[in-house]
Amino acid sequence: MEAYKIIIIGGGAGGGTSAQFARKTNRRADVTVFEKGLYPQYSKCGLPYTISGVIPSADHLIEFNEEWFKKEKINLLLDTTVERINIDEHVVIAKRNKDEVEASFNRLILATGAEPFIPPIKNIMGKDGVINGAYTLRTIDDAKGIINTMKKSRSATIIGAGLIGLETAEALVKKGLKVCIVEALPRILANTVDEDISSVIAEEVNKHLRVYTNHIATEVNKEDDTIKHVVIKNKETNEEQVIPTDILIIAAGCKPEVSLAKQIGCRLGETGGIMVNERSETTVDGVYAVGDCTEYKDLITGAPILIGLGSIVVRQGIAAGVNAAGGSYTLPAGVLYTRTSRFFDLEVAAVGPTASTLERYNVSFVNGRFKGSSLPDYYPGGEPVIIKVGADEESGRLLYAQGVGCNAAQRINVYASAILKGMSVHEMKRLETAYAPPVAPTLDPLTLASDVCSMKLKRKR
Amino acid sequence: MEAYKIIIIGGGAGGGTSAQFARKTNRRADVTVFEKGLYPQYSKCGLPYTISGVIPSADHLIEFNEEWFKKEKINLLLDTTVERINIDEHVVIAKRNKDEVEASFNRLILATGAEPFIPPIKNIMGKDGVINGAYTLRTIDDAKGIINTMKKSRSATIIGAGLIGLETAEALVKKGLKVCIVEALPRILANTVDEDISSVIAEEVNKHLRVYTNHIATEVNKEDDTIKHVVIKNKETNEEQVIPTDILIIAAGCKPEVSLAKQIGCRLGETGGIMVNERSETTVDGVYAVGDCTEYKDLITGAPILIGLGSIVVRQGIAAGVNAAGGSYTLPAGVLYTRTSRFFDLEVAAVGPTASTLERYNVSFVNGRFKGSSLPDYYPGGEPVIIKVGADEESGRLLYAQGVGCNAAQRINVYASAILKGMSVHEMKRLETAYAPPVAPTLDPLTLASDVCSMKLKRKR
Repeated sequence: MEAYKIIIIGGGAGGGTSAQFARKTNRRADVTVFEKGLYPQYSKCGLPYTISGVIPSADHLIEFNEEWFKKEKINLLLDTTVERINIDEHVVIAKRNKDEVEASFNRLILATGAEPFIPPIKNIMGKDGVINGAYTLRTIDDAKGIINTMKKSRSATIIGAGLIGLETAEALVKKGLKVCIVEALPRILANTVDEDISSVIAEEVNKHLRVYTNHIATEVNKEDDTIKHVVIKNKETNEEQVIPTDILIIAAGCKPEVSLAKQIGCRLGETGGIMVNERSETTVDGVYAVGDCTEYKDLITGAPILIGLGSIVVRQGIAAGVNAAGGSYTLPAGVLYTRTSRFFDLEVAAVGPTASTLERYNVSFVNGRFKGSSLPDYYPGGEPVIIKVGADEESGRLLYAQGVGCNAAQRINVYASAILKGMSVHEMKRLETAYAPPVAPTLDPLTLASDVCSMKLKRKR
Repeated sequence: MEAYKIIIIGGGAGGGTSAQFARKTNRRADVTVFEKGLYPQYSKCGLPYTISGVIPSADHLIEFNEEWFKKEKINLLLDTTVERINIDEHVVIAKRNKDEVEASFNRLILATGAEPFIPPIKNIMGKDGVINGAYTLRTIDDAKGIINTMKKSRSATIIGAGLIGLETAEALVKKGLKVCIVEALPRILANTVDEDISSVIAEEVNKHLRVYTNHIATEVNKEDDTIKHVVIKNKETNEEQVIPTDILIIAAGCKPEVSLAKQIGCRLGETGGIMVNERSETTVDGVYAVGDCTEYKDLITGAPILIGLGSIVVRQGIAAGVNAAGGSYTLPAGVLYTRTSRFFDLEVAAVGPTASTLERYNVSFVNGRFKGSSLPDYYPGGEPVIIKVGADEESGRLLYAQGVGCNAAQRINVYASAILKGMSVHEMKRLETAYAPPVAPTLDPLTLASDVCSMKLKRKR
């Protein structure tokens, strides 16, 4: 029997989950994780909540500690940066403190993650990355830095109104800072939901902070080595404004970290991520890749998509871990990109591409939208919920769904299940949902959105 | 063009919805509803919450009032009892006060509902139905009677620990009464969920009231025309107990009201309900039936099942109304029986047959169960949720799911969608569910239950 020697590069959610499932699959496999940071597997998605204090300390985010890895007989090497891979000889060469570490493998899992994108802002770069007072939010150390700086800050500016930008903005508002967000696109959450859904969130967000859409940051000014202002520019009018800010957080997306993958000849896709299949295999034999460094297929458009969601990263990690250790695990043929968050108690969720993505791929579709209550009208305490769906104009097949309000995430999960199985909007409108006065209405807003869409489709024929 | 003359017998959720959708489908159809009670369409399911006072008055349950029917040009005849139908001449003969009303139709919709089953308890029947102080809970008048009697009562006994029995028991506990439930079966909710799920509810319910399982009520004793005691008997030991009770509520199920259907030759099924198809048609041409008087097919077992859920009743009403008025509406090939309720803040939900029903039909299946939290471990405020699934032993096809705890109903709706499309448990375990720290964990208990089941199935091979 072959002796499994598995090396995993990166100890985040993707790498850590790979290790965990490799071990579950094969009690005798030799499993080693190289992690350049100082912390064992932790939840990146939890970082904004350590800033708000909802999670009392960043250390709480550690999901599997060193002891756990030891107990599972997984070699976890922290503070260890892989410098190169000799793919012919199956050897990884890494640096730990000043020592060189060499280790051989017959299965390799790349979980190298992504690096935050730093927009071209004048004065933003110091000699060790971004200047003091400016932060990205990818690591526990980033969060700790923000928490420290925040204590002596009165105002904060966030670059980017995506999920992480908004989550971080809310955290800072909760800590009493005056917060603004600078977003280059005309609206918040532009890559997450359609305009009519994001506008509901915007209405709530605007009660707590200022969002400058259609604006970019052009320059930061510092004084005594501390950020004092950020200059922002209206993309349409070119008008400039100077915004006093003590802390600047860049949440403008990230790019996959693929230098090692490139070095060993893994094929990269058009998004720049490592191409992987439904077994999390790269194009190089015996080499798997998982997480934010990879691209996979969107189930609806068929187009490659960068993986930037913890939920998908973990599922890829399961597949890579099981397969690398001699088991068999196949992911669905594409990702649904089911996503959610909560802003100032307003839950938002979505599955599938947004309308603008579908338009880009020339998919003809029809929308339905329903605004209702989480409970029957006669029962007190119902909360608003809006569900929107999109279905293929020809076949009626469900393509996407978005929701905002009460239990949006679980309602969107119903669509995730339906979309995965190719359900049509005409079937969804008939779905028997659970009803009881204190729980949900007879006809749930989730099916009524499909009803509206189904009627529109029929009228078109 | 044919002139549509639609008569609907019964103005409950089924009849009312039929009328509403007949009108939506055909603005010129002649639509008449005969309702023997005094109230226009109201929610039966809301009745227990008028007893607890959560809904301030039973009149709040009226979802469509007489004015609404007038506006929609639907003839609503309240206090009107249909006595017979001349099917050859297409005429309905009814009694309104002391007058006889005759009306002709070319489409007939039977929505005659069900009558509560009264167990053979000594002294329970008076000359006008059950004696003073004893109630069933099917109508607004029943609820009003209970509310009146409750004011001078200190103790209550409920016969039956199904959904309605438990909902009513909770309402009475909330009003400060000492409550007990008498259930002939060995456990509560025996027809709703499996034993391991009902035991979680039982633990909560037992904190608030006493449940006598395996007991039947044999006799009531009254004094001055008022109930004083109920005698209950242990089915195993035959031991008898006398329980002081000021109010007795019978929630022991009901039987379909099919006398008119029988009279005109509609075929009844083995359950005693009117047989209907996916268009809500009976076996008699031009005659439809909806709601608690009908039986339809269970999607999983294929066996006939009595319709006793408001959610299904309304969907049948849509089908009957649309089809009777010249449109076309087809229901799924069977019912999922998606159901939910909440007891003392514990949400319970289920879809598909219970384990014991599957065993009765000799279906071989395997279960998976997962107890987890509604949120990631590191995020505060997560609430427990248990999900249980059953899958076909051969094919892995999902057969049923049950849940208790946080958002059980919407989680079970995810399974409803999956089961409708024939999803396997192996697919469900890979479903990409929405994840964000304040909303749901990376791997939701809903998919982890399928994961457990999937592993068990694989181990069997």
